[in-house]
Amino acid sequence: MTDTPTTMAAMLLQGHGDIEQLIYRTDVPTPSPNTGEVLVKVSATAKNNTDRKVREGLYPTQDNSTVTSFQMTESPTLSFPRIQGADVVGRVVAVGKGVSTERIGQRGLLDFNIYADQRDDINLTPDYFGHGRDGGFAEYIAVPADQFYDMSDCPYSDAELAALGMCSYQTAYHMLTSARVKAGEHILISGASGGVGTALIQLCRLLGATPYAISSPGKSEGLKALGAASVIDRTQVSDWRSAVAKATGGVIIDAVMDLAGGSMINPLLDVMTEHMSQRKDYPRLSIAGASAGNVTDILWTKIYLYQIQLFGVSHGTRAEARQLMHWIRQGDLKPVLHGTFPLSELHAAERYFASGRAQDYLGKLVIVPDSEWQQHGAPYAIQGVSA
Amino acid sequence: MTDTPTTMAAMLLQGHGDIEQLIYRTDVPTPSPNTGEVLVKVSATAKNNTDRKVREGLYPTQDNSTVTSFQMTESPTLSFPRIQGADVVGRVVAVGKGVSTERIGQRGLLDFNIYADQRDDINLTPDYFGHGRDGGFAEYIAVPADQFYDMSDCPYSDAELAALGMCSYQTAYHMLTSARVKAGEHILISGASGGVGTALIQLCRLLGATPYAISSPGKSEGLKALGAASVIDRTQVSDWRSAVAKATGGVIIDAVMDLAGGSMINPLLDVMTEHMSQRKDYPRLSIAGASAGNVTDILWTKIYLYQIQLFGVSHGTRAEARQLMHWIRQGDLKPVLHGTFPLSELHAAERYFASGRAQDYLGKLVIVPDSEWQQHGAPYAIQGVSA
Repeated sequence: MTDTPTTMAAMLLQGHGDIEQLIYRTDVPTPSPNTGEVLVKVSATAKNNTDRKVREGLYPTQDNSTVTSFQMTESPTLSFPRIQGADVVGRVVAVGKGVSTERIGQRGLLDFNIYADQRDDINLTPDYFGHGRDGGFAEYIAVPADQFYDMSDCPYSDAELAALGMCSYQTAYHMLTSARVKAGEHILISGASGGVGTALIQLCRLLGATPYAISSPGKSEGLKALGAASVIDRTQVSDWRSAVAKATGGVIIDAVMDLAGGSMINPLLDVMTEHMSQRKDYPRLSIAGASAGNVTDILWTKIYLYQIQLFGVSHGTRAEARQLMHWIRQGDLKPVLHGTFPLSELHAAERYFASGRAQDYLGKLVIVPDSEWQQHGAPYAIQGVSA
Repeated sequence: MTDTPTTMAAMLLQGHGDIEQLIYRTDVPTPSPNTGEVLVKVSATAKNNTDRKVREGLYPTQDNSTVTSFQMTESPTLSFPRIQGADVVGRVVAVGKGVSTERIGQRGLLDFNIYADQRDDINLTPDYFGHGRDGGFAEYIAVPADQFYDMSDCPYSDAELAALGMCSYQTAYHMLTSARVKAGEHILISGASGGVGTALIQLCRLLGATPYAISSPGKSEGLKALGAASVIDRTQVSDWRSAVAKATGGVIIDAVMDLAGGSMINPLLDVMTEHMSQRKDYPRLSIAGASAGNVTDILWTKIYLYQIQLFGVSHGTRAEARQLMHWIRQGDLKPVLHGTFPLSELHAAERYFASGRAQDYLGKLVIVPDSEWQQHGAPYAIQGVSA
């Protein structure tokens, strides 16, 4: 701890609202690692859509009303000011009580969950660094030692590693495991060009399943390079059954991984109610987002006569994080990194993400502390934007 | 076959419509058992709600439009005239090729499914005797020998056995297995006084789970006698969360078994989003009916932030039928028999079922061929109605 400064640069979220609520400060107290924790000097933190949703307060609850944030426990865990940023890469610079000093110097990737308990196979109250506790849009972060996974031998750079963070990959993996996706199955993925979508494509291939992607225009080649067997441009579809049949060669869609919700749900369910007698398992849909709309009229006869199973997914389990970290270390998952921004320019990154230009790219934006920019950020700067 | 008459009495459904479409005939050709089948002389057949729904053509598909029936394969399996009646008890009077003549004389209960294949653990295209093939509202029925389970040593009468039929019990059991209901869990059951509901209550107890019932008024004592830990009169509820908390003593509702749909879904989901941090598994809802309405606005943020899992259920599997038959043989499941009607008076039974009086009773109506009435029907006749 001796050479760790007492204050640091960080982007503080002051309250719900637009990006003006994000204030860059250089006098934020550096955190200290508690028992069982490590202090990490941050080199790269991926930007996730969840940061924007939390900032804007878009998590609605009952009665379609909008509330400030989701809350699973007796009291809300989000308080202000809060440092956002879930997918953190960096190096251990100090350890708390009960953690070996051998960890110091180790490069790692954070499992972003604030787990409610020690259970390995279930995670019932998803909360995370950047929401219930401070995240990685800062120079330092204190996190549980067992959730900061050693990436010393990993083939990827820090910015690339951040792009492989758990916020997308663990959610994607848990969507697949919830729906019992297995080798040989054919999986339709909506919202395929986002962070979770590109993770889903790669994870389907790792599991031996064949992914078909639904995406906005212009991303076909990129998604195919990641493993999509074919890509459907959603803006060109009038009849989903025939569009999917055409794109897949008429295979049975065993399960749908959906991030769209809204008006996409019923067409996606209809795709799965075909060829019932030739199916091997019940039609399954996992959903982890609702970019096309938060409400859908569900017809129960469709659900129960066709024995459709629906799985709501947020984050995943400790065991799933461990498996993903193993795959990342082995180079089995490819980072999809679009570019980097310095931490002090997070506003520009948010505007870039929200702009029309975001439609044109695939992959993650990664935020790098200004003090680390030359080493970890500059090589991936976006020409004319962040460089 | 020598003493089997060439014609028989049967109730023929002539087409979709009201009960006038059900015509009693005594000159219907007696079926012959095909290879692997047995010919059964029917002594008792339970009435199920599905018969009414198929008659009225209430299975809607896409776009909320109403169609004549559900159809899972390339061509509809329901054709007219059709003999309805799914839960059949009787005695083997002849066998088809490949079936031992030792079966002759054996009393049995039918597993009502027309399975699409030999798979033991999945049943993807539910169809059944009384829908895709002729059922038990007749004096004779030909069925697969391996689906007519030996009930020689079962402690129940024929009418009681019919009331334990698979149409309700297998559906109920599959609702529980789909939702992974296990010992120690607390289960909320809507529509608890119907055939599937009373089966759910008993099956929860067999699995070691605690059932709480939601029902219409006046059925509390009957449902408690079957095993319900407490009963909520749905007509008296304004706030479901507090009503359930009061009725259960504030336990965590691990899963909901729903037969109501419509406006009941969101309150039932809300009951399961409480106490997330104390849960042991994801909140689960199985649905196998929609008596309160076929359409519900689903809020996807509720589904995915709370990680709710929904299971559409129709019928169950061969393995589940086998397990249920074992429990029935052992006397582990209690028949809930309200009363009997002669086959020729099926119209009266339908009117009785649909009338206000149906609100006052618990359990099954069982139909007995007129030629078997004195032995199998008369002991359970309803005073002033069917006797």
